[in-house]
Amino acid sequence: MDEIGQYLRNMRAQAPLVHNITNFVAMNVMANVLLAVGASPAMVHAREEVAEFAALAQALTVNIGTLDPAWAEAMELAARTMAARGRPWVLDPVGVGATRFRQDVCARLLDLRPSVIRGNASEILALVGLGAGGKGTDAADSVAAAEEAARDLARWTGAVVVVSGPVDFITDGSRGWRVENGHALMPRVTALGCSLNGVIAAFVAGDPGPEPVVAAMACYGLAGEMAGRAAQGPGSFAVAFLDALCAVTPEDLTRDARVLAL
Amino acid sequence: MDEIGQYLRNMRAQAPLVHNITNFVAMNVMANVLLAVGASPAMVHAREEVAEFAALAQALTVNIGTLDPAWAEAMELAARTMAARGRPWVLDPVGVGATRFRQDVCARLLDLRPSVIRGNASEILALVGLGAGGKGTDAADSVAAAEEAARDLARWTGAVVVVSGPVDFITDGSRGWRVENGHALMPRVTALGCSLNGVIAAFVAGDPGPEPVVAAMACYGLAGEMAGRAAQGPGSFAVAFLDALCAVTPEDLTRDARVLAL
Amino acid sequence: MDEIGQYLRNMRAQAPLVHNITNFVAMNVMANVLLAVGASPAMVHAREEVAEFAALAQALTVNIGTLDPAWAEAMELAARTMAARGRPWVLDPVGVGATRFRQDVCARLLDLRPSVIRGNASEILALVGLGAGGKGTDAADSVAAAEEAARDLARWTGAVVVVSGPVDFITDGSRGWRVENGHALMPRVTALGCSLNGVIAAFVAGDPGPEPVVAAMACYGLAGEMAGRAAQGPGSFAVAFLDALCAVTPEDLTRDARVLAL
Repeated sequence: MDEIGQYLRNMRAQAPLVHNITNFVAMNVMANVLLAVGASPAMVHAREEVAEFAALAQALTVNIGTLDPAWAEAMELAARTMAARGRPWVLDPVGVGATRFRQDVCARLLDLRPSVIRGNASEILALVGLGAGGKGTDAADSVAAAEEAARDLARWTGAVVVVSGPVDFITDGSRGWRVENGHALMPRVTALGCSLNGVIAAFVAGDPGPEPVVAAMACYGLAGEMAGRAAQGPGSFAVAFLDALCAVTPEDLTRDARVLAL
Repeated sequence: MDEIGQYLRNMRAQAPLVHNITNFVAMNVMANVLLAVGASPAMVHAREEVAEFAALAQALTVNIGTLDPAWAEAMELAARTMAARGRPWVLDPVGVGATRFRQDVCARLLDLRPSVIRGNASEILALVGLGAGGKGTDAADSVAAAEEAARDLARWTGAVVVVSGPVDFITDGSRGWRVENGHALMPRVTALGCSLNGVIAAFVAGDPGPEPVVAAMACYGLAGEMAGRAAQGPGSFAVAFLDALCAVTPEDLTRDARVLAL
Repeated sequence: MDEIGQYLRNMRAQAPLVHNITNFVAMNVMANVLLAVGASPAMVHAREEVAEFAALAQALTVNIGTLDPAWAEAMELAARTMAARGRPWVLDPVGVGATRFRQDVCARLLDLRPSVIRGNASEILALVGLGAGGKGTDAADSVAAAEEAARDLARWTGAVVVVSGPVDFITDGSRGWRVENGHALMPRVTALGCSLNGVIAAFVAGDPGPEPVVAAMACYGLAGEMAGRAAQGPGSFAVAFLDALCAVTPEDLTRDARVLAL
């Protein structure tokens, strides 16, 4: 893998417009995360305009957190636009194990060939039909248990698959990486996982493939580490995390990324 | 009432999954409040899945802040699930006095037997048909004026009724408690009232009855006092409040709760 | 123009109820901004109640950020109520250049005679049919380029028109003002522009005309300057900004407003 900081440098130089169809809990955090890291966010979901808008964007994220049928339709319309234009889109199958409705929507979205799929271990296991229902959006299963499932999912769908956890795992089906950056307070702040989808989308907007995904994961985790040094709890962590996403430099990333190529 | 800190200890040991159908303003804050205090939040509302999901949760909250008919239907489906399973659910009748639509929806929800009803004085008065329309979600009426209405509402519905205000009042229809913990900046931060519903739900998830509700109110107010010592205004208060909800211990609660049993 | 601090003093004395139909990204921030500055926010959108609720409010804001047809209908119903009662309402045509759907909705809303229209330069240019599509919600065009368009729009619609940017421009079609208060981190925090609509609405609730709009812009920008002195990045800026909106006094505003009457 090349010097990892370059992916952050390139992303900021492009400042891609990232179109997000995400849940109500995450929208504000996700917009702030994208602005802080140096990209340009937009949230648009009406069927009357979602495909027209997606055509303006360099990348798309789809997150099924607070799903309903109208939003599911918007997700399909936007994903179809990206697929037709050869632009990347990221799928986050939140709580896919919990209900039949989520499983049906995810099955339709997988047919539209996401570029990246990111979930916790339970969600990735559920996607490949191996896992049990998650407890909310927590990862009841371990990342290690999901690594083989992630490789299978990557080979089956053609996506880069990310399993988020204390140590993240990224695979394109053949190669694999572990990213050790991160902080224990990250899962105590809602929507940081969802917002990560936006950062991944920004990194792959101009540069497809697993390497920029690995770089996005390391960058996000490193910002978490920087924030953790200033935080006294989850409230101050969330604030410091946005400051850190804005402050982190390509040089920081190259120096402090903890990535293991498997 | 037993040692009050035990209710916080028990809640954290259970880390209940709390399903919330709440307004768009509160969703993010509520999720962060629940994560900070030690519970597990989820937001799900589509009629296609809301009952299936509610069956996974230990408790439910329903808040009519940014209501529409589809969401009202979801609230009924989820509340019906909890009622059928004997699990607790909390109703927050935001602005019920303001429009006919809100009154109709609340009347239907009351039929589904909420375990706890929490509102400001105007809302509790409106619910029992005594009060006038509120000005937005502010409490135009005093808590003292609503105490008798709260007792009536508790006897009528079988719910524990909470009147939020500078001094909170909690009643099961016969007994009553006043909780004096809190801070003047709390009403200057949006959604802290709505998010309190989640904390109440988490406390009653494993332990029904008025005592865990009283403990939840004292715990929340105490976190407000802790935050107030670090805050310079409503922005920094909101941040410090999440830190405090995470930091407050059962021992703090037992020592610093200011509860008056009437 | 009279002593500018009086507009803040008058607004706080009235503490107007501001009804907001805004996007999902902005709702929480907007409520906190209104509470911090001293007004009373409410978010209501269902067609079953939106007109009834609007009749209780002193002012309305409409923001088309995360639009769909049901919300567009609610916007029209609420704006019609305000127009019929002679109460002010503020239109924010977010991303109007991006899709046909947004253009159609804005055309219908303009027929309902907004009291104030606030947008970035691209949006104001798009509204008068001069401009090109915006890139998301960023201002690709400069404020200076939009000044003539703003005057045209004000004469055509009868609204006070505000072009937000590093230097803001306000016009009623004949007179014009530039407001130089502000801070470079403001566009790095999502929804601060949307939330400004609420502050403008609060200022004009009891006092129509361009002067209170100018005062609202200077007050907001001044709070940004105060926040900028305490901030280390966009996260801490957002927190300090709410503290500053609460702390800023009429005397501060009179002393530190940087307004140029053209």
